[in-house]
Amino acid sequence: MTSTLRTETGNPPLPTAEQRLKDLGIELPPSPVPFGAYAEAVQSGRMLFLSGMLPVVNHKPRYVGRLGKELDAAAGREALYIASLGALSAARAHLGTLDRVTRVVRLGIYLATFGDFFDQPVVADAVSELFESIFGKEKTSARMVLGVASLPMGMPVELDVIFEVE
Amino acid sequence: MTSTLRTETGNPPLPTAEQRLKDLGIELPPSPVPFGAYAEAVQSGRMLFLSGMLPVVNHKPRYVGRLGKELDAAAGREALYIASLGALSAARAHLGTLDRVTRVVRLGIYLATFGDFFDQPVVADAVSELFESIFGKEKTSARMVLGVASLPMGMPVELDVIFEVE
Amino acid sequence: MTSTLRTETGNPPLPTAEQRLKDLGIELPPSPVPFGAYAEAVQSGRMLFLSGMLPVVNHKPRYVGRLGKELDAAAGREALYIASLGALSAARAHLGTLDRVTRVVRLGIYLATFGDFFDQPVVADAVSELFESIFGKEKTSARMVLGVASLPMGMPVELDVIFEVE
Repeated sequence: MTSTLRTETGNPPLPTAEQRLKDLGIELPPSPVPFGAYAEAVQSGRMLFLSGMLPVVNHKPRYVGRLGKELDAAAGREALYIASLGALSAARAHLGTLDRVTRVVRLGIYLATFGDFFDQPVVADAVSELFESIFGKEKTSARMVLGVASLPMGMPVELDVIFEVE
Repeated sequence: MTSTLRTETGNPPLPTAEQRLKDLGIELPPSPVPFGAYAEAVQSGRMLFLSGMLPVVNHKPRYVGRLGKELDAAAGREALYIASLGALSAARAHLGTLDRVTRVVRLGIYLATFGDFFDQPVVADAVSELFESIFGKEKTSARMVLGVASLPMGMPVELDVIFEVE
Repeated sequence: MTSTLRTETGNPPLPTAEQRLKDLGIELPPSPVPFGAYAEAVQSGRMLFLSGMLPVVNHKPRYVGRLGKELDAAAGREALYIASLGALSAARAHLGTLDRVTRVVRLGIYLATFGDFFDQPVVADAVSELFESIFGKEKTSARMVLGVASLPMGMPVELDVIFEVE
């Protein structure tokens, strides 16, 4: 608990994204490495587009399977959390610091589902809640969630992020 | 038939989006409420990103099922029409008035399909035709249509919109 | 082999996208025609959004089927290559010349897959490699790849492109 968290009762400035990460005890993994001929982050004007982030650790799938068959919603949330850390790491690698993020503009959340799987919003909140805790609710995003037939190398989730940056 | 519709033969200014809505007798529902930790509309510069719009009425699914199995293309069009009204309502809630829309930049149309369903373009036209009737053909969008495995809470359609605004 | 290719050893300016196309012997097809009420390209500010590009020739599907069932990864690459030429043609029709492209911002690559299909990145590279050979590696894109349930008229691939233009 640092002084930067006293904003509810006092007047200090809001903690920055990097401060919040530290307060939450989150250490980001190295920036992900592309699986093909593309870049993990591309900026145009003030918009930073990330490539689809997957639940990989050391460039290897940490989860494989579909929600509603091999995996349940809880596993989907864990997989999406891992993909989210990759997104933050890729953004930091591009920007130097996450404090340059002025808004989480849009999240696209893609879940490999099988049959009747209806819990897309619960799974998707794993990234939305994480990003709100880091960037603040006032910078929350628009969001789209789809259940898809398959994802690269059989992974269960993929995350698409657009940040507004300064 | 109001005087604002005489543009084909005379010189009055084109009707605005809000005038056209009124002329068409369309009343928008209340702005949709998020199903998770996100916002329905986020603006960055002149681009307004909406969250994925679903065929809900009063925050409840109005249609459930997949095109090509429980539902046919006609039902898909009706569901997409409902999602489209939600999109217009969310945009108006953010902008104050739809007259600030200067272009429909891009529509992403996602249909939960089963097996061999080939009528994606016919279903997608339900929103494209509605938006052209409101914003004018000169502001028509780019468009992408996908058949997906599942959508939140089993709904058959989802609509992703980017508007350019002033 | 033209003088514009001597950049590795000399100081002439890099070949432009249009020069590279010519050097590669690629002739673009006519710009694709929409399958519904939309435009193939919409520009907002410096961002050019293309509609979902399909593997069509003369407005007819050149490939039909799903990867992992009726078609394999090699056919998916061929289909995506055709869709990519359509994207280049639509962009040129809008811009006058591909030399106005300052960055390939983001590629969305959608593959209709069946069952356990894990080769999404290999297929997706068909467009990434083509675009890198035309626009240069320094303009490479962010990228997202999804396996979807179905695509318009049963086609196996769809390509979504955002260019930054001047």
